[in-house]
Amino acid sequence: MKLSGQVTIYEVGLRDGLQLESKILTVEEKLSVFNLLRKANVSEIEFGSFVHPKLVPQMANSGEFYSHLKELEEMQLVALVPNLKGLELAKANGVKSVNYVISASDTHNKQNVRQTTEESLENFHQISQFAFSNGINVSVTIATSFGCPFEGTVPQERIMNIIDKLLVHNIKRITLADTTGMANPKQVYSLTKEVVNEWRNFEFACHFHNTRGMGLANIIGSFEAGISIFDSSLGGIGGCPFAPGATGNVCTEDVVHMLEEMGVRTSIDLDVLLEASKRLRDILGHELPGQVAKAGKSSRLYPVPN
Amino acid sequence: MKLSGQVTIYEVGLRDGLQLESKILTVEEKLSVFNLLRKANVSEIEFGSFVHPKLVPQMANSGEFYSHLKELEEMQLVALVPNLKGLELAKANGVKSVNYVISASDTHNKQNVRQTTEESLENFHQISQFAFSNGINVSVTIATSFGCPFEGTVPQERIMNIIDKLLVHNIKRITLADTTGMANPKQVYSLTKEVVNEWRNFEFACHFHNTRGMGLANIIGSFEAGISIFDSSLGGIGGCPFAPGATGNVCTEDVVHMLEEMGVRTSIDLDVLLEASKRLRDILGHELPGQVAKAGKSSRLYPVPN
Repeated sequence: MKLSGQVTIYEVGLRDGLQLESKILTVEEKLSVFNLLRKANVSEIEFGSFVHPKLVPQMANSGEFYSHLKELEEMQLVALVPNLKGLELAKANGVKSVNYVISASDTHNKQNVRQTTEESLENFHQISQFAFSNGINVSVTIATSFGCPFEGTVPQERIMNIIDKLLVHNIKRITLADTTGMANPKQVYSLTKEVVNEWRNFEFACHFHNTRGMGLANIIGSFEAGISIFDSSLGGIGGCPFAPGATGNVCTEDVVHMLEEMGVRTSIDLDVLLEASKRLRDILGHELPGQVAKAGKSSRLYPVPN
Repeated sequence: MKLSGQVTIYEVGLRDGLQLESKILTVEEKLSVFNLLRKANVSEIEFGSFVHPKLVPQMANSGEFYSHLKELEEMQLVALVPNLKGLELAKANGVKSVNYVISASDTHNKQNVRQTTEESLENFHQISQFAFSNGINVSVTIATSFGCPFEGTVPQERIMNIIDKLLVHNIKRITLADTTGMANPKQVYSLTKEVVNEWRNFEFACHFHNTRGMGLANIIGSFEAGISIFDSSLGGIGGCPFAPGATGNVCTEDVVHMLEEMGVRTSIDLDVLLEASKRLRDILGHELPGQVAKAGKSSRLYPVPN
């Protein structure tokens, strides 16, 4: 069991998390959470997306939100873009880093963007060329890497083939996403170990959901295999469109708490992060799935009753 | 990473779980859940405890409940006993297996039974002799093995010393309990590895709470170290008396789901187990913390929307 190291947290609450919330946050509300994340030393944040505002109204103010962040050169601030049009909008707003999603499952990819996986890979050439010629950094998330809610198991070789086809592009990071929380630690260990051993050209990240309670166990599985970048969502918001009662992304403060308790450094101030989570809870007006915010840190001591 | 094997589940929902619920279950209600657990092939169940009914009214009908179970020779049915008086009551009710709890933290042990850990170990001689001469099987749970809510860190050597002192007794199983959910996977791996390597005389089990979201990750940590018996609670009921909003024991159906998805056999029928969890939810009248009961199994497929 790998027991030490350093981890980078890529915060997705303001994008993946918020887009399933019924309340639409104003720019001021987003800033109020963002500023606490920044104060907690969270250095990589997916702040929004450039998609059609009718499809994802929660992200309609992403451009305006970014206008308040763009001076923060020390941070990695990323927007999700579904297509070239989104990328052009991101560029028009001065965004310097974008994330493009391709689903390893054809059925899931068609649901998302009305294209097969192969077609999305084809279209990615336009995206990566436009980004490269405009000095925009691109990363790719491979959705349903550990299973598809329509097709079930996604063969490991499909992931390997997609990564292979991404070699020609000028991208640094590839994120393997368990989009609907189907992954288990053994599967996660197996795929990430293979991927990490096969390619040194990319930095690999993992994106887990806690839909079936395995979120932190999957972090352990992939950390053991050599992954040290994890997507997570403040408060664990995010949900799953297919399972209304289920929880969402792995919770940032729970991930940071576990890793720091293990002696793995995240560079994040957990106490300030917990403030950020409470701020988000107050803004959303409901309890969030994260557990450490409710129970306190493991190091929390109680007075002895008389 | 250890990727295969077989695991035994020791179900504690009807004892550890129910004793923090405000609703007191009748014998009929307990039987209704128990019968589904049995149908799901759960073979080891802590069915109740013989403690003062004023202290734990939820367990007051443990004797009557057991009178309906005692013919089930193929199952391991265990009662918690806090002292000799409890053991005598268990014997009077025909119980054949009991579990005795000693806390590794003096402060926690004093809160539980008004004795130091050393005094509890002394008193255990009476217990184990009475049990032995009456043909009753005894197991021991070492509470706060991974941390105490009053004292904080519990030195690993305290656990080792307690186990060492248990060698003279005729006991088969020792359970290391993370009573208030403070353990992390690295710590769990470290202690269980040491314990498993040091003693071949006992079978070791682990008892985790999901208070800070690390429950399943801790199962993975200890499974990798060689532990293959896990306490868990149907629906994840149990809570933590110190953190009202926090969840309880690791959830049986979530543990079984994760292990079976990994190819680790539990001999348990997950579908029937999920029925048992829903029955318990209906009886308790509130949502339970377990996640698989809400989200469905990872293998659950969804129709493709038009």
